[in-house]
Amino acid sequence: IELLEGRDVAALLPARPADSHKGTYGHLLVVAGSQGMSGAAVLVARAALRSGAGLVTLAVPASVQAQAAASLPEALTHGLPETSEGTLGVEAAREVVRLLGPRDALALGPGIGAGRETAALVFELLSREEIVVKPCVLDADALTLLAREPRRLDEAGRALGAALGMVITPHPGEMARLLGCTAGDVQADRPGKVREAATRFGAVAVLKGARTLVADPAGRWAINPTGNAGMATGGMGDVLTGAVGALLAQGLAPWDAARAAVYLHGLAGDLAAAERGAAGLLASEVADHLPAARRRVLEEAGQDG
Amino acid sequence: IELLEGRDVAALLPARPADSHKGTYGHLLVVAGSQGMSGAAVLVARAALRSGAGLVTLAVPASVQAQAAASLPEALTHGLPETSEGTLGVEAAREVVRLLGPRDALALGPGIGAGRETAALVFELLSREEIVVKPCVLDADALTLLAREPRRLDEAGRALGAALGMVITPHPGEMARLLGCTAGDVQADRPGKVREAATRFGAVAVLKGARTLVADPAGRWAINPTGNAGMATGGMGDVLTGAVGALLAQGLAPWDAARAAVYLHGLAGDLAAAERGAAGLLASEVADHLPAARRRVLEEAGQDG
Amino acid sequence: IELLEGRDVAALLPARPADSHKGTYGHLLVVAGSQGMSGAAVLVARAALRSGAGLVTLAVPASVQAQAAASLPEALTHGLPETSEGTLGVEAAREVVRLLGPRDALALGPGIGAGRETAALVFELLSREEIVVKPCVLDADALTLLAREPRRLDEAGRALGAALGMVITPHPGEMARLLGCTAGDVQADRPGKVREAATRFGAVAVLKGARTLVADPAGRWAINPTGNAGMATGGMGDVLTGAVGALLAQGLAPWDAARAAVYLHGLAGDLAAAERGAAGLLASEVADHLPAARRRVLEEAGQDG
Amino acid sequence: IELLEGRDVAALLPARPADSHKGTYGHLLVVAGSQGMSGAAVLVARAALRSGAGLVTLAVPASVQAQAAASLPEALTHGLPETSEGTLGVEAAREVVRLLGPRDALALGPGIGAGRETAALVFELLSREEIVVKPCVLDADALTLLAREPRRLDEAGRALGAALGMVITPHPGEMARLLGCTAGDVQADRPGKVREAATRFGAVAVLKGARTLVADPAGRWAINPTGNAGMATGGMGDVLTGAVGALLAQGLAPWDAARAAVYLHGLAGDLAAAERGAAGLLASEVADHLPAARRRVLEEAGQDG
Repeated sequence: IELLEGRDVAALLPARPADSHKGTYGHLLVVAGSQGMSGAAVLVARAALRSGAGLVTLAVPASVQAQAAASLPEALTHGLPETSEGTLGVEAAREVVRLLGPRDALALGPGIGAGRETAALVFELLSREEIVVKPCVLDADALTLLAREPRRLDEAGRALGAALGMVITPHPGEMARLLGCTAGDVQADRPGKVREAATRFGAVAVLKGARTLVADPAGRWAINPTGNAGMATGGMGDVLTGAVGALLAQGLAPWDAARAAVYLHGLAGDLAAAERGAAGLLASEVADHLPAARRRVLEEAGQDG
Repeated sequence: IELLEGRDVAALLPARPADSHKGTYGHLLVVAGSQGMSGAAVLVARAALRSGAGLVTLAVPASVQAQAAASLPEALTHGLPETSEGTLGVEAAREVVRLLGPRDALALGPGIGAGRETAALVFELLSREEIVVKPCVLDADALTLLAREPRRLDEAGRALGAALGMVITPHPGEMARLLGCTAGDVQADRPGKVREAATRFGAVAVLKGARTLVADPAGRWAINPTGNAGMATGGMGDVLTGAVGALLAQGLAPWDAARAAVYLHGLAGDLAAAERGAAGLLASEVADHLPAARRRVLEEAGQDG
Repeated sequence: IELLEGRDVAALLPARPADSHKGTYGHLLVVAGSQGMSGAAVLVARAALRSGAGLVTLAVPASVQAQAAASLPEALTHGLPETSEGTLGVEAAREVVRLLGPRDALALGPGIGAGRETAALVFELLSREEIVVKPCVLDADALTLLAREPRRLDEAGRALGAALGMVITPHPGEMARLLGCTAGDVQADRPGKVREAATRFGAVAVLKGARTLVADPAGRWAINPTGNAGMATGGMGDVLTGAVGALLAQGLAPWDAARAAVYLHGLAGDLAAAERGAAGLLASEVADHLPAARRRVLEEAGQDG
Repeated sequence: IELLEGRDVAALLPARPADSHKGTYGHLLVVAGSQGMSGAAVLVARAALRSGAGLVTLAVPASVQAQAAASLPEALTHGLPETSEGTLGVEAAREVVRLLGPRDALALGPGIGAGRETAALVFELLSREEIVVKPCVLDADALTLLAREPRRLDEAGRALGAALGMVITPHPGEMARLLGCTAGDVQADRPGKVREAATRFGAVAVLKGARTLVADPAGRWAINPTGNAGMATGGMGDVLTGAVGALLAQGLAPWDAARAAVYLHGLAGDLAAAERGAAGLLASEVADHLPAARRRVLEEAGQDG
């Protein structure tokens, strides 16, 4: 077991050489959101830009594209075909595959809802070779949907494990659904469960909660000391997803991206809490503290922030 | 009579233990807004998140959902069936009941307007068992509508009093309508009137204005020293409603939620005024000072903020 | 001639007694905006709230209501009937009259455009008894339109002069059109022209530009020392209109409202420039400095801000 | 070769005399944006206002006008005819020409996409006398489109060179397309390539990237020392386009506008990075630091900022 520390995280972070351009820092595709949960998509994209991604494309159901675009002018947006409920269905698969082609990584799941048609999309995407060859982070509703057929995640994980890798970021309830146990079981043995998930799904697994854990299929695992209870509020998980996705897009291995993102996300929350107070934080302001968190760990490691 | 003080308020506030998650802090359902008053709904939800709620769902007439979603990415939104005027009618009742089911508390009223169809909705909701068993805060137009048939509030209050409790937050004009007297009568005997309302409606009653009063049906009452005249502007009442709702969702008893919210709301206004000046405050910036207000009272009580 | 000074302005400002409520500070109706100029309406309303108005209702063409509402949750909004070009036509008159009824003052003009149908609306409004009995501020396109038939302004002004009063806030080009001369003529004799306008139209006239002048029909006039060239950018006039309107709604006489608003508006610009630099200011950030400007003048006068 | 320095840039900046008005600082027309890239348009306009432009009109495809208007109340907006994909087609040409008539400069390109119909518009505009007589800055997609027929840019450049001048702001990939070589070729000889482009197209050419270069058709060239790798992210180029456009609108010669904008843009990025950290900057916050950058160079030159 590894206790994450700032100086180790500093060593993982992508260098920011003067002679670079936005292409150097990757292009993340975010597939997220639905009617009523469009904000989740915006938070993922905001956090990804705050984590140094070169470009972010936010693909959402067509009816929420305008809201997303108005909320974050720095992101590119794309309206995907949607169901009558304003959610993503399987007919969006082809376009997601096409969008991902020239992009570097995928973040899938926040705010997509748990409908049957969206489930079909997630299953379809994870069966596609073009998806599986890209690093990706799966969160929230994507995990809930996959928990209905964990075999799919299993297969995708193995394929991804053989390719570039996948990160999953469940909270205890989602982890319980994935492993077919109760949330109480998960909390009673967090280290065991996160390692079980990593091994079983061939993915880097992040088990959120106080003292977030990260494990990889090879048996390594780590514990994160940053973060605070002010982050126990809506949207904070979306911010973590964006941070992981941005680091994947910048070329970090999943194990490194997950550990660095988890540490920085918690530290950003600690910096925000120090400024504003330890309850009542908004997820978007934690996202906005990610650059300061990165600077802090670099400074602690004796580097320029 | 009790004079609210910071250290007493500190003792009421929900602890924020490290080992907690967003479910620990409750899920508030906000039913608010209409064409032309959509901002009220956004202010309630913003204040609720700023008061530490784990999750907030903002249910508004369908035609203003997009505006609400764009304004606050951290909230979930839901578009309710609406009248041709963009207000809520009785046909929204079923969906409100369904939404409230798995949620912890209800905030009802800001910006819903005073139309007949909306009145029918409010009456219908307060007659439903599924509503009455949840803690709720009623404000603004909901009170104006109920004042047309105070017997309904009466019945609901009694039912709620027997269940988990209700908070009403009228300003003097709304209080006058509820009690069938004039605003002058209310102001001439603020302590008497707030206690009368609490007893009659079986609710914790908050009488807003300089030196806001809080009373409960058992005869207890309290006076609040915080707040300033810069808060005499549109939307400040919505912020209070959100603060009360968030504390109810976090499990505080109505009497405690109302007293703590009233104190913190006024203190947040005082902190905002110290920063920016004592006139021209915006309600959203007072909401954004709620975490600092919470920190202040905890620090005064010798606790970490 | 009077040189405006902070301590004099402090004496004009409405007191903010502890025992007050939002009704104490008036309700301003803003009639403004059109397709392509919706931001002007938002700036007027924002500045009015930043100037201490109790409530602001923003009445705009129906197709821009959603944008306005999303931009400023503290304002009430109202969608008025519009032309096919998204501008206000004469058929909006009845609703404007109805809206103004229970409100305290009117701000009319910014961003309404210079179309014929909008001209008809302005003429119609200024011929209505119900409009003329309320204090109002006319700016921007409203003045351009009236310049086509200055007799109308003339009549309205006389009626208003006999009633509660009108403020007009032209820049030199608008003043030239109103007086039937050239902008060069105006600039060559700014004191003469502002006094001529005040006398002729029976209104308090504000002639904008470096060293803004204010004159009233009785022959008094004043010169303003605040402001800077960083304010020579789009939307700053809308902020002034909002400030005048808010002070009228709070019960100041037009002569006092105009002088105080002009001084505070310039000082807010000076404070913003000191913070951020003397070019590249946004009008909305000048609006957001209005409370600090008010505090500054009160402090200079030895009062609490 | 010239190394750009703060004191030289200070000498180029338009004075901000007290006796000025928004007309003094020019009116920029921005033609930009499309479905999915509406944010680019907003960033250009924001940066233009932050660079001291008197007025900015943002002309975008009609379906994204509302988003643009809601994002920046200080800008005027105009909805142009659009294709079924929400992009600009050749039928927008007439309206662009009409809009540009009374305005001082044009910024064309960010976020317009690379479709055939948009290409036709760009070609049409650059063949129009009314366009060519105005100073303009071409960026991003406009350059990609012109690269398909560089002869057009060639002709336009010659015409503009004979008139008031054009600035083009390619990144290395766009430059490669314009010159018919590879990005590797461009990076291997940045000074040679930027001078080749300037000569060939009769335009002031800006070659973006670390150490941005500026060249003019007369053979002068300059190198910029400001900026940092935190600016390697989406939207930063749009901010530069807005800054160039604003300075053209204020009457600077293209050679001066380009050099000053490049220097200030990089310095704004450096100031933002000093405040927040060197990765994770948002383009809009760099735009918001442009006034501070201007103040810094004026102060270094011993002038008031």
